[in-house]
Amino acid sequence: MTARDTDRPRLSRRGFLGAASGVAAAGGSALATGAMAAMPVAQAAPPDAAEPFWGPHQSGIITPAQSHTYFAAFDLIAGKREQVADLLQRWTEAAAQMSAGHPVQSGDSGDLIGLPPSRLTVTFGFGAGLFIKNGVDRYGLAARRPAALVDMPNFPGDQLIEAKSGGDLSVQACADDPQVAFHAVRTLARLAYDVAEMRWLQSGFLGGFGAKETPRNLMGFKDGTNNPRVDDDAAMNAVVWVGEEGPDWMRGGSYVVVRRSRIFLEHWDRMKVAFQEQTVGRQKLSGAPLGKLRENDAPDLAATDADGNPVIPENSHVRLAMAETNDGARILRRAYSYNDGVSYTAERWPPWKQGMEFDAGLVFICYQRDPRSGFIKIFERMAKFDMMNQFVTNTASALFACPGGTARGGFIGQSLFATV
Amino acid sequence: MTARDTDRPRLSRRGFLGAASGVAAAGGSALATGAMAAMPVAQAAPPDAAEPFWGPHQSGIITPAQSHTYFAAFDLIAGKREQVADLLQRWTEAAAQMSAGHPVQSGDSGDLIGLPPSRLTVTFGFGAGLFIKNGVDRYGLAARRPAALVDMPNFPGDQLIEAKSGGDLSVQACADDPQVAFHAVRTLARLAYDVAEMRWLQSGFLGGFGAKETPRNLMGFKDGTNNPRVDDDAAMNAVVWVGEEGPDWMRGGSYVVVRRSRIFLEHWDRMKVAFQEQTVGRQKLSGAPLGKLRENDAPDLAATDADGNPVIPENSHVRLAMAETNDGARILRRAYSYNDGVSYTAERWPPWKQGMEFDAGLVFICYQRDPRSGFIKIFERMAKFDMMNQFVTNTASALFACPGGTARGGFIGQSLFATV
Repeated sequence: MTARDTDRPRLSRRGFLGAASGVAAAGGSALATGAMAAMPVAQAAPPDAAEPFWGPHQSGIITPAQSHTYFAAFDLIAGKREQVADLLQRWTEAAAQMSAGHPVQSGDSGDLIGLPPSRLTVTFGFGAGLFIKNGVDRYGLAARRPAALVDMPNFPGDQLIEAKSGGDLSVQACADDPQVAFHAVRTLARLAYDVAEMRWLQSGFLGGFGAKETPRNLMGFKDGTNNPRVDDDAAMNAVVWVGEEGPDWMRGGSYVVVRRSRIFLEHWDRMKVAFQEQTVGRQKLSGAPLGKLRENDAPDLAATDADGNPVIPENSHVRLAMAETNDGARILRRAYSYNDGVSYTAERWPPWKQGMEFDAGLVFICYQRDPRSGFIKIFERMAKFDMMNQFVTNTASALFACPGGTARGGFIGQSLFATV
Repeated sequence: MTARDTDRPRLSRRGFLGAASGVAAAGGSALATGAMAAMPVAQAAPPDAAEPFWGPHQSGIITPAQSHTYFAAFDLIAGKREQVADLLQRWTEAAAQMSAGHPVQSGDSGDLIGLPPSRLTVTFGFGAGLFIKNGVDRYGLAARRPAALVDMPNFPGDQLIEAKSGGDLSVQACADDPQVAFHAVRTLARLAYDVAEMRWLQSGFLGGFGAKETPRNLMGFKDGTNNPRVDDDAAMNAVVWVGEEGPDWMRGGSYVVVRRSRIFLEHWDRMKVAFQEQTVGRQKLSGAPLGKLRENDAPDLAATDADGNPVIPENSHVRLAMAETNDGARILRRAYSYNDGVSYTAERWPPWKQGMEFDAGLVFICYQRDPRSGFIKIFERMAKFDMMNQFVTNTASALFACPGGTARGGFIGQSLFATV
């Protein structure tokens, strides 16, 4: 009932480092303070809060992260472009209704009766297959495919499951309640009957760290510290939103990269904290860059130790991910943790055991103005050199073009279909 | 942003029936009021609340349901009984630490730093395999196997996946935060290294319906209305807790049945609400038994309509589940919804489509004093006759004996190991 429930020494969660793997707590006075992380988690919002659906941008992109996500991809099976446009119109209307906390007009499953809007957002995206698939221009849209909607490369180490990758359309539902988020995907899937079939569905969650703390992912490290700030319009315009360079239907939109990154937690958990920190390039407790005190201190990439070695290792995750080492490339991370149970796994490290291990990790999701100068640019090098790769395997990958938002009465992607 | 976000008529979630499948709202004045459901959801509890771990009963059985669960089963690989006892001792200590919001003593993964206890409970159980497995008495405990720890029967319609069923040991972690619940399982799995291996892991969730409403499951109906009240000691002693009839180590304990019940949501969602209500035997909106007004009204099994047909159909779920039709058999339901993505499915109804459908439904979990006079007694008839079966397939099944609780300094199951 109380914090005095055990005979053991009273360790607060803040004090875990002193007990972990015999590593002394580095920077006990270095608890993160100061600036709020750029992608705040707003789980503490009142549950009756609703996020706006209509507007120049789709919701769910720079919206402070909700606690749960369901990301779904669909394959189009319709023969005619009009059917796709009709679906997008139905989807848009339903998403607006659900975001406001209303049931959909026909056949709502009813499982949300009594639940508030829970900050539901629904974000739609178009995969390459909408424009051309297996060389076939099914909907007369091939000429309208944006150059930025590339075929995603296979990166070194990728072990992609085809059935969990790609897709012609995407729906990301996020909410502060898992049932509200799933209901949105379920409803949209039903509305797609005879037009599009589900291809894959991935759920994700965040711990309730509150609006003032960067959430920790399953590796135990803060995830998203270095994100651009979503309340910085100039940064969002530079990093996230498509501008004049894009087709009209993509202006105010963004490109989303989704990667299912399985983390070998059993392996990671057996590493000493000091080694984990070298891998990440940050302190576990505070989130501060190695050699610094506070989470939001800028990493000093030039700093060296007494032996002349970089304080932040050359192959550490943070160094390889930073804009400074990627010709200024930036992305907006909006990642979730996932847990899909256990699966039989052959370990890749001593003592080379085989057995059931967690199929858990990160649903890495990031938004950017152009994936060629965003995620792909950054990850090409990380895939080769990041020390973290020995603990992570990417098992699925997808890229979708998320059109700009729409005013009430329009639908997502309308100008793409109207102008052909 | 507001409830006026769409051009559509303003339907509140309460008003969904008027729009659903053209069925008029039955009992619009019959909103559930009155007595609180017997298994209240306490998601609205302050996140820093902690549930007591030590005591005569294990926590997580009559604890008001938290919003998230991870249920894990383990296979024992240790050769000696002492190793199993040591594991249970380590598990007990770690569960107590974590329930109080503390990190474990060695190698905590650290991903909860900054998170409150979130009402974590950890409940341990013993499967038949602890006592005898493939005819082998591995730990000298075969003679101590309780008669109530039966081999679960295969019920009509069961399509059980062996890899997701059974297990020698069980751990159910429940918390109001998914990361807190998963952390507990992850930590205990690590402590089991070389003694037990994970066999399966199933996650579940509940919508945040609050402490005064019975949660709705994915079928859109209230789930658990007819539960015995957890604050009724006499009912708990009669229904849940093992008494003098059990071995000493099971006194104050309970038996848990876990069934992974996949619901064919696509099929269910296309049924008219009136048909759904006939299937369940209750009104969808209010939760009242058919022919009654309020959720907690007692079903009138004798009532007939003008044609002489039962108001509550003979094969409806509620009639077949009631103690009155099962020689008084009762259980304590503690179910969660689950969603494991999508899988390729051949539909069992017109138009006989094949495609990707949700692998979602109910993690049916119930506790009882004796499964032979509890779940098995009740379900033997339901498996044959329940109209709901056409929408539900049970894909996994397990039974565990959950020992009584322990005072500080002891460990779960201690007297079983001490007295052999």
